[in-house]
Amino acid sequence: MAGPRKLGEFEIIRRFFAPLAAQEPGAFALGDDAAVLSVPPDRRLVVTTDAVVRGLHFLAPDPPDSVAVKLLGVNLSDLASMGAEPMAYTLTAALPEDLDEGWLRGFADGLDGMQREYGLSLVGGDTVGTPGPLSFSLCAFGLVKPEAELRRSGAREGDRIYVSGTVGDAALGLRVLRGQLGMLTGAERQWLVDRYRRPRPRLALGGRLHGLAHAAIDVSDGIVADLAHICEMSGVGARLRADCMPLSAAARRALDKGAVSLADLLVGGDDYELLFTISPDKAAVLAELSDELACPLAEIGEIVALRKGEGSRHPVLVVDEEERVLDVGGGGFRHF
Amino acid sequence: MAGPRKLGEFEIIRRFFAPLAAQEPGAFALGDDAAVLSVPPDRRLVVTTDAVVRGLHFLAPDPPDSVAVKLLGVNLSDLASMGAEPMAYTLTAALPEDLDEGWLRGFADGLDGMQREYGLSLVGGDTVGTPGPLSFSLCAFGLVKPEAELRRSGAREGDRIYVSGTVGDAALGLRVLRGQLGMLTGAERQWLVDRYRRPRPRLALGGRLHGLAHAAIDVSDGIVADLAHICEMSGVGARLRADCMPLSAAARRALDKGAVSLADLLVGGDDYELLFTISPDKAAVLAELSDELACPLAEIGEIVALRKGEGSRHPVLVVDEEERVLDVGGGGFRHF
Repeated sequence: MAGPRKLGEFEIIRRFFAPLAAQEPGAFALGDDAAVLSVPPDRRLVVTTDAVVRGLHFLAPDPPDSVAVKLLGVNLSDLASMGAEPMAYTLTAALPEDLDEGWLRGFADGLDGMQREYGLSLVGGDTVGTPGPLSFSLCAFGLVKPEAELRRSGAREGDRIYVSGTVGDAALGLRVLRGQLGMLTGAERQWLVDRYRRPRPRLALGGRLHGLAHAAIDVSDGIVADLAHICEMSGVGARLRADCMPLSAAARRALDKGAVSLADLLVGGDDYELLFTISPDKAAVLAELSDELACPLAEIGEIVALRKGEGSRHPVLVVDEEERVLDVGGGGFRHF
Repeated sequence: MAGPRKLGEFEIIRRFFAPLAAQEPGAFALGDDAAVLSVPPDRRLVVTTDAVVRGLHFLAPDPPDSVAVKLLGVNLSDLASMGAEPMAYTLTAALPEDLDEGWLRGFADGLDGMQREYGLSLVGGDTVGTPGPLSFSLCAFGLVKPEAELRRSGAREGDRIYVSGTVGDAALGLRVLRGQLGMLTGAERQWLVDRYRRPRPRLALGGRLHGLAHAAIDVSDGIVADLAHICEMSGVGARLRADCMPLSAAARRALDKGAVSLADLLVGGDDYELLFTISPDKAAVLAELSDELACPLAEIGEIVALRKGEGSRHPVLVVDEEERVLDVGGGGFRHF
């Protein structure tokens, strides 16, 4: 089997991964055929999985700890969007021959930090060699009370659409890494890069939206595309108000300087904020929650009926303050 | 994103993977951020994961359905070795640009057949492109009653060692695929290749070993190496009786013709049989179970005390009928 030049599979597991499983007795220090976990009788199990490939989902110069933070972060963001709290995860790693141990050390440190911050543990994995690029696949497990589950499918006509945090920062961070946005300050550029590399899954918010949100999703494909997912699963349309988009100071500056368009921010992915819909009469309760969690929440539009005879049209309309429809590129949908 | 030339990520999921999730309501047709599963209050959750890379763990000419059968099979074999019954799995796929749809269709068909045979469902996944080789990572979930869990760590001095089925066939199947073993008949060669490509996880047996087996593992690294794992986790040694090894007719013929050695069979991996230890007074009960399940079980050795002052020696000794120690290569341990 291929693998880092000097270490075998068992040694890599022993040195870098087994310590991450030390706190969970059911992981058997990664020394058995499988992990055995308890799910409390009043909880359901929430499962999500994501894979990343170097050169596509992360970049060769990315700090290894940030690759771990992002990989675990995007999975935890999926748990947040379901209203679940993190419990455990498994990891498979495909390692090219020339990967150095220092990289693995940094990656394991990144996982360790996330485990401490979000209270979960590695419970299993597999390490293989590959002649291809460094790749990882992570499967995360969360717990949720049945009554607290959030879905994409419950949005109703008249709902108000909210998003946490700010919109489009990660896409700008990626531009910075590609050498663009030189008109911003160094601190602004670094902040945007951090937004791209180190998502902060909105677990506290997701865990409090039951009884409030009719539908929820995390922003991974871009706010327009992810809102379209809600619309498709709920059988509704949506109007997004471009003038209401919450923008970071850095994004606002890039916009004001003409370096990016608002459309760029609306179709940019990787923010890992929560996007959700609530009944208008819950606005006051939501404002209190926003204060309590110190989590900025912005109302950015409303759910509308699907326009008749327009089933093939994009379900999300973006309008400006004068109700003019903005073109956000190909109907605002980023195709893969 | 890279990916099969003409299909995007969503279309691949819709066409090939979503149908595999249709039977599990909590998978939401792969259309939400995560799956939500119920674990009965009297069961614990068993989790295992394995990754495969084309060129290393499967070969380019392997039929695509057999790649699926093996990938899911090796994970189910881990569940079997823990005494668990299968419930669900997630799958991540890294697809090179030039993969054709026919391959994916065959792969999905292989998964579908395994789902029907073993009663589980796809519940989540991620599909990404890669400039490297076709790769998959699968995470399987099973359920087990707490009192029925099997571990590697409970073997005791005096235990008898048993293995299901026959030993070393998969390693011979791999040799056939490499153009060797031409002295066997076409039917024998095909049978060995099937043993390599299409493991049959011993779930029925694993589900019945509670109260009988003190320790269990599935044979993936080879019988000597996997027995060593049991010894290390149990703090014991083992004597394997070479003359007691259950061999298939094809393996016996290859041995008789001098094409392979017994050592080749003992260190050959990928059989996915169950290897376990029981108290000698349970032999009769085990024989009844073997009959009931129509599952061949062979006694192949016994657990012994670790030899004093020999902590660095390999814990597994292989002896012939005259108690002479056989050298099975590097202490019988296949290093990675």
